[in-house]
Amino acid sequence: MVSSNALFDSSVLGSSMRSQLPPNHVLRALELTDFNKGYMECLANLTITGTVTGQMFADSFEEMQRAGCYFVIVIEDLEANAIVASGTLVVEQKFLRGCGRVGHIEDIVVAKGQQGKRFGFTIIKQLLEVANVTGCYKSILDCSLENVPFYEKCGFVNKGIQMAIYSPDAVQK
Amino acid sequence: MVSSNALFDSSVLGSSMRSQLPPNHVLRALELTDFNKGYMECLANLTITGTVTGQMFADSFEEMQRAGCYFVIVIEDLEANAIVASGTLVVEQKFLRGCGRVGHIEDIVVAKGQQGKRFGFTIIKQLLEVANVTGCYKSILDCSLENVPFYEKCGFVNKGIQMAIYSPDAVQK
Repeated sequence: MVSSNALFDSSVLGSSMRSQLPPNHVLRALELTDFNKGYMECLANLTITGTVTGQMFADSFEEMQRAGCYFVIVIEDLEANAIVASGTLVVEQKFLRGCGRVGHIEDIVVAKGQQGKRFGFTIIKQLLEVANVTGCYKSILDCSLENVPFYEKCGFVNKGIQMAIYSPDAVQK
Repeated sequence: MVSSNALFDSSVLGSSMRSQLPPNHVLRALELTDFNKGYMECLANLTITGTVTGQMFADSFEEMQRAGCYFVIVIEDLEANAIVASGTLVVEQKFLRGCGRVGHIEDIVVAKGQQGKRFGFTIIKQLLEVANVTGCYKSILDCSLENVPFYEKCGFVNKGIQMAIYSPDAVQK
């Protein structure tokens, strides 16, 4: 059972990034009802979303909420009643580095037609604040070569190579 | 409270990789008591482990066990009563790809003096089996340029660039 409409307690978000938004836009935790505000359609700007029913969405939402380590944030256009950008931080517990934590930044997306509003930059900066609040000693992400300059502007440095292997029955991403 | 000495149910491991091990070695889930079998000392071959007390280890173990998405496996040398290799799969729930899952392979380590026994290869292949059993459509990892050929032999392909940012008060890894 989903116990709250918000994926996580918004106290970890702070308020510093909200002033970066245009009027009538809000940055907040993903909510269960965002399925009806075009969240999946926004994600579709990034990659294959496949068929996701409301029940599938709710089941995944509940699993993430229960785990407590998923911080999916969205920017909503309040006039259009639509999600226009999103990004995720997954906080990984480790044993090394004094039982430290690492933030994994995933699925950064800005909807088509919404470029030029610094939504990507705002989302990244907000996720890094969450990483600090939740005690991550570093945050990492994987990107294409063409996106390296953007992440360098956000303060990231190149640290390695991303390798991937697909399950035999998976469609290539 | 830690409910079991094993981090996860060993049924996800199967048995195909066990035949790859030398005599008197076992591949299994991390156990709480591995703190006393040199698990942290094994991890120290990879990176900074910092100071980790038995209580800190137990607390992190419990958090991972409760989350249910951490699959830390070890190879134990039964004669030496010591952990000689380890690797971790963290299973991430997503909304995209039909609410798919991605496996994050982390902290692959083989203890000094244990090279040449294909422990790294065995650990990777076992983690990929767990990724399949837990429904991951792909598994990803980050590595240095010099380790790319090893992961290519394991079936991985280069997919991107790893970027990282450290928290202001963190020591550089």
